[in-house]
Amino acid sequence: MDLTVTRDGHVTSPAGFSAAAVTAGIKPSGNPDMAIVVNTAGSAAAALFTRNKVVAAPVKVTRAAVADGTLRAVVYNSGNANACNGVAGDRDAEEIQSRAAAALDLDAAEVGVCSTGLIGEPMPMAEVRSGVDALAAGLGEDAEHGAAAAGAILTTDTCSKEVLVSGDGWSVAGMAKGVGMMAPSLATMLVCLTTDADVPAARLDAALRAAAEVTFDTLDVDGSTSTNDTVVAMASGASGVTPDAETFDAAVLAACRDLAAQLQADAEGVTKRVAITVTGAVDDGQARTAARVIGRDNLVKCAMFGSDPNWGRVLAAVGMAPVEMDPDHITVTFNGTPVCVDSAGAPGARDVDLSGADIDVQVDLGLGGHGHGTVRTTDLSHAYVEINSAYSS
Amino acid sequence: MDLTVTRDGHVTSPAGFSAAAVTAGIKPSGNPDMAIVVNTAGSAAAALFTRNKVVAAPVKVTRAAVADGTLRAVVYNSGNANACNGVAGDRDAEEIQSRAAAALDLDAAEVGVCSTGLIGEPMPMAEVRSGVDALAAGLGEDAEHGAAAAGAILTTDTCSKEVLVSGDGWSVAGMAKGVGMMAPSLATMLVCLTTDADVPAARLDAALRAAAEVTFDTLDVDGSTSTNDTVVAMASGASGVTPDAETFDAAVLAACRDLAAQLQADAEGVTKRVAITVTGAVDDGQARTAARVIGRDNLVKCAMFGSDPNWGRVLAAVGMAPVEMDPDHITVTFNGTPVCVDSAGAPGARDVDLSGADIDVQVDLGLGGHGHGTVRTTDLSHAYVEINSAYSS
Repeated sequence: MDLTVTRDGHVTSPAGFSAAAVTAGIKPSGNPDMAIVVNTAGSAAAALFTRNKVVAAPVKVTRAAVADGTLRAVVYNSGNANACNGVAGDRDAEEIQSRAAAALDLDAAEVGVCSTGLIGEPMPMAEVRSGVDALAAGLGEDAEHGAAAAGAILTTDTCSKEVLVSGDGWSVAGMAKGVGMMAPSLATMLVCLTTDADVPAARLDAALRAAAEVTFDTLDVDGSTSTNDTVVAMASGASGVTPDAETFDAAVLAACRDLAAQLQADAEGVTKRVAITVTGAVDDGQARTAARVIGRDNLVKCAMFGSDPNWGRVLAAVGMAPVEMDPDHITVTFNGTPVCVDSAGAPGARDVDLSGADIDVQVDLGLGGHGHGTVRTTDLSHAYVEINSAYSS
Repeated sequence: MDLTVTRDGHVTSPAGFSAAAVTAGIKPSGNPDMAIVVNTAGSAAAALFTRNKVVAAPVKVTRAAVADGTLRAVVYNSGNANACNGVAGDRDAEEIQSRAAAALDLDAAEVGVCSTGLIGEPMPMAEVRSGVDALAAGLGEDAEHGAAAAGAILTTDTCSKEVLVSGDGWSVAGMAKGVGMMAPSLATMLVCLTTDADVPAARLDAALRAAAEVTFDTLDVDGSTSTNDTVVAMASGASGVTPDAETFDAAVLAACRDLAAQLQADAEGVTKRVAITVTGAVDDGQARTAARVIGRDNLVKCAMFGSDPNWGRVLAAVGMAPVEMDPDHITVTFNGTPVCVDSAGAPGARDVDLSGADIDVQVDLGLGGHGHGTVRTTDLSHAYVEINSAYSS
């Protein structure tokens, strides 16, 4: 297995893909706000969606379109989520789909639609219609077009998120946007993966699901979950190469892992990247549940913001996790230094240095089990409150 | 039923109780940090404790002491939670209990112990021993002694919390402390109720449980739950009056409701008091679960801080609640104004004024069910982050 991972690539890096981006006028800022990615050589596709019961119109449209394992294009817009817009929102999403399909000479069911932005605002369809037409007229396969697409899907992101995983004669690339609401598994997160590997939809779907379970699904910024989360993967087959399953899975995993790390690093208001690993659990599921409960605890997250080795809050948080544990034999380690042994403070615990941007928290539940799991979260900072208290108005 | 509720009362207002407070030297601030409440005329008692699996030493001690339905005194300290201190912590809690008992000429099993403060710090037992002795020597039945006790249990509270509910010849009084971590049911919350009604422990227990379920249990400031939460109720019988069950339950409920309102109003960093009521659910339990999910959502709480009528976040939050709902027919009302009807925005929704300190959120799940429930929470403010990022260091 010989794979190289770099951030110097775009969704157009794999053969058989073109992209475009435009400023349609959806965002008041005047920044680019629409993008498209087109699979010009194949149609195999897979997708994952938010687990929220309240889903945006574009999620309904894309879920139906990809049900047969095919997509030839995905239209993106930022600045408006087209969520909670009732029947009018559904109609708008369908119109975006059918208008893009007509412009590209495709069937409507071959086009996916992804939106991100404010919930509950009607889509400015005059601008969107012109935007769709401009996207179809402006497609290109070069790096500039790919990079432009990655920029046009951003909302409060501070930078583009792209990755390229290269194999022997084939590659997997991806772009992502996402900031807050990255939980409990996907969240105001849009991801588009492209590959020129010659793989069927079922292979793509299996690789994507396995990778998401240990990457996007374990990112938990604030416990909130978006109505719009969508991860799409498209395979063009244009390389003519069919990698073995193990190598292909590894490439998709590497792409998802790197994009998830970029999402975590650019989460809303983040000043710390916190990895919480739980061991000694009955099974991996319980370990991950416990890690998630700790990672969502606002008191733990505030302590991380303050670089405060307040391990008592970790114990108070894990004690509420609905999993088996030995309350008298819990161990907590901060950045490799034991701060709590057998549920009591270790010498020097208050002096552990958490001033760096990366904090590693390890919690052993004391059961001697082999279950383990990791959740990645962030601190709770003034900037998080600032960004999220002044978003819609 | 003729009950009057006032905040001009103390745990010593009902006949048969004495109290004391001292500055033992546990708090670096030099503020009062130990208190005691003694039932001089009876022994009936009931108590509720945190649901956290990780419990502080005093919780273990008090849980065992009250198991037989009796307590004659409760010793309080602030400034140190005596949680996660291992075997030494257990031993310290037991010593506080037995030392107070000896000073008051009681059995150890007649004394409860409650602690609040930092987790994982050894108890400064030299100071605590002197404090226990001073408490026993300084008891008094007047208002000053009651008020002093209410002040000595505070941590980051900004004010004392007391209540007096007067019936015909008898009364129920209470004091409370609590700020953050008030969830999901009790949390770094200590409450002491006293009554001179002549009621057995079973009656007291039933009244306390019923009242807590709809008051303390529905307060949810930050989703975190303390290792130390304890609500104790003691009855002296000194009035010689046995109220009918309905009136007694109503008095206990009134006391708990008023103390819960005081706790909510003084929660860490609060600038808004938010009541979230869910209707149209299958049953009351599902309604309360949905209300709790909304009340814990950081994006909703940040919007409240910003006085931002961003109802889309309420929909995104409720969509993750593990309850039945009709995702296309959810209604949201802010301060009486419908902002979302059939899961889509209502005209004028963005103009609703949320600038006041009290915000009322009503969510109907669209099932036509009769299930309803209310959870009280607060906003997520800069002050919350400030207080909680600089607590231990």
